[in-house]
Amino acid sequence: MKIREIPGGVTKAKGFKAAAAAAGIKYEGRKDMAMLWCSVPCTVAGTFTSNIVKAAPVLWDRKIVQSGGKVQAVVVNTGIANAGCGAEGMAVCEDTAAYAAEVLGLQKEEVLIGSTGVIGPVIDMEKLKGGIDLLVPALSDTEEAGTEASKAIMTTDTVNKEFAVTIELPGADGEGTVQVTLGGMSKGSGMIHPNMCTMLGYIATDAAIEKELLQKALSSVVPDTFNMITVDGDTSTNDTLLAFADGLAGNRLIAEEDESFELFREALGTVCRTLAVKMAADGEGASKLIEVCVKHMDTKENARTLARSVAGSSLVKAMIFGRDANCGRILCALGYAGPVFDPAVIRIDISGESGEVNFYTDGRIQPFDEAQALAILSEEKIHIECDMACGAEEATAWGCDLTYDYVSINADYRS
Amino acid sequence: MKIREIPGGVTKAKGFKAAAAAAGIKYEGRKDMAMLWCSVPCTVAGTFTSNIVKAAPVLWDRKIVQSGGKVQAVVVNTGIANAGCGAEGMAVCEDTAAYAAEVLGLQKEEVLIGSTGVIGPVIDMEKLKGGIDLLVPALSDTEEAGTEASKAIMTTDTVNKEFAVTIELPGADGEGTVQVTLGGMSKGSGMIHPNMCTMLGYIATDAAIEKELLQKALSSVVPDTFNMITVDGDTSTNDTLLAFADGLAGNRLIAEEDESFELFREALGTVCRTLAVKMAADGEGASKLIEVCVKHMDTKENARTLARSVAGSSLVKAMIFGRDANCGRILCALGYAGPVFDPAVIRIDISGESGEVNFYTDGRIQPFDEAQALAILSEEKIHIECDMACGAEEATAWGCDLTYDYVSINADYRS
Repeated sequence: MKIREIPGGVTKAKGFKAAAAAAGIKYEGRKDMAMLWCSVPCTVAGTFTSNIVKAAPVLWDRKIVQSGGKVQAVVVNTGIANAGCGAEGMAVCEDTAAYAAEVLGLQKEEVLIGSTGVIGPVIDMEKLKGGIDLLVPALSDTEEAGTEASKAIMTTDTVNKEFAVTIELPGADGEGTVQVTLGGMSKGSGMIHPNMCTMLGYIATDAAIEKELLQKALSSVVPDTFNMITVDGDTSTNDTLLAFADGLAGNRLIAEEDESFELFREALGTVCRTLAVKMAADGEGASKLIEVCVKHMDTKENARTLARSVAGSSLVKAMIFGRDANCGRILCALGYAGPVFDPAVIRIDISGESGEVNFYTDGRIQPFDEAQALAILSEEKIHIECDMACGAEEATAWGCDLTYDYVSINADYRS
Repeated sequence: MKIREIPGGVTKAKGFKAAAAAAGIKYEGRKDMAMLWCSVPCTVAGTFTSNIVKAAPVLWDRKIVQSGGKVQAVVVNTGIANAGCGAEGMAVCEDTAAYAAEVLGLQKEEVLIGSTGVIGPVIDMEKLKGGIDLLVPALSDTEEAGTEASKAIMTTDTVNKEFAVTIELPGADGEGTVQVTLGGMSKGSGMIHPNMCTMLGYIATDAAIEKELLQKALSSVVPDTFNMITVDGDTSTNDTLLAFADGLAGNRLIAEEDESFELFREALGTVCRTLAVKMAADGEGASKLIEVCVKHMDTKENARTLARSVAGSSLVKAMIFGRDANCGRILCALGYAGPVFDPAVIRIDISGESGEVNFYTDGRIQPFDEAQALAILSEEKIHIECDMACGAEEATAWGCDLTYDYVSINADYRS
């Protein structure tokens, strides 16, 4: 096993500390701010929302990531998104970075910001400052500190999401290997189709890797991980994924696309995919995880589009919630997705731990065992496999069922 | 008033008769088949689903419409969609047309078919024949017969949809004008984003108009009417809109794009828009109609895309249901729609009979009167206006709120 899962999250890589604090932004007593800090300047890579309306922290972080400068901290708040606040929002963002920098002894351009919550209101600067005053002395490299930070950034999430792995890479001294760790945390439910409460993700690694390659690795794993989850089709103004690398593992600097880069990229993909699937499973109101695998498609992008269309279909989602094997809806969602295929040759199966049911082949819906289908649809994870029979590419998307609770949560989110 | 609304639907134009019957396809005693018949051969135009997976009746109707031949009847059943049934489904469709043609004394190519309901099962041919045996002797040109037909094609619809108008066009004899009538019925909830239970629409007119111009008029009004409603983002395998023109009004044949064509096109647009809005308001589980008007956009297509994005956003829909003025979600839905605009200059208002609230202008969410917003959001029809300040084009989309009932209906549709 080249990639080994370990407990914990963002504090597992050498040099990283985290903290959580209750700043009174969300509601009294709820921890609503988190900080991730590194003892040395970090290389940073990032991907951001494609929404034209970008929250102030997205604009701030993107500018810094693109500048090429190193960073040492990220400050995150939940409760208010700092989106749709115009120049005042940008000022709050910059002032927060400046205040944290002052307390931490850094430049403001070394501090990144993340916000998630309601769009519109301006965050009270005094609360942010108070939060930072609590966060800095609480910074710790314990596993618990990472877990507390992953809990503090939650909005409608019901469970915190963290994950960490280790890999072995050649040492900087040219002899033997060293252990490199990647730990991450995230909240929310998507990137292409995220929940309004926003997808925020932070990955901390002690790998030594050049900035361009860190960005390349991150950008290459996102399309098949965070971008393949969908909860409700709404792409947030705040989606942000950042990867920090401090080089403290002592590995030989990853400076080209060699074997070490490939292993690192694979480990980063594992962390991103695991966090992404945790988000899909914890989609607002979700009671089940839906995994849609599209195989034998002509292009990768078409495979992704088809898989996302099925995972994102309101009718498929409602059917899974209702454990009603009205599987023509899967066929329908493939058909309106856009990519061209021949309905006469494709095959669709659903499966779970209790078995598998083929319900479409030879150009038509097949008779199937209703009891078997009900048993599968009663499981917590439903696997839908679509064999398009027109190529060699495949893609997997993850979503969740559509429940009464989704409506309830979103009909009255502000209060 | 050039276009005058009159009561009734598909039987109002001269020469058309309709009937409804209980054939036992949906459930015992429910009228689940309808027929529209014309005393003379009709010119026909149609638009069909863009879904790659097309139901057998869509393939049948499209072939006939494209052939250029005249038709005299359409047979519609609810309960089963006749989609995903392969060659057997096509055979059922053709046999239904052949049987109806035999009873009516027509060729099978003069009979169109519409089906809506569950995907997968094959419709029992004996039930279809039995239904046709009941329908033919029941054909009537009364207003009630049209209404009964519009009720028989319903699936999860809670109210039937019909509408009719009259216009005055120059008479065929060159002296004075004659009255031309357009009557329509429809069921379901969409065309671009229809509900799985399918959008079916039938418009019957006694206008004399060349086939190419009838198709041109229909194709030109669909993008701003049926294609601008959205319920759940799922495009059905069965969507079909047909327009029949029998020429019995005695108007001078519309053979070029003159004033008569424009007035006819406008009347057709009024019928299509009215039926479309009725469908949006009756979206599955809907308690409110949402109307989104996007103004001052650079291109018509971009205006349409933005309007549909807001009307189709799960989060906007849930917010309207919850009467929660979390209006940043409207801004967000504009932002991820695709078309480029400047968030700093746009303006967003919501209004109803009780007043208007501006909540976004000057690049930020504005403070607003919560009581006023609640009063507006408590109304049955909510108007959202987005001024994009970058052009002269506008478009309107219609949708409905997302409710517990939507989930309930779709979690257990088959039973």
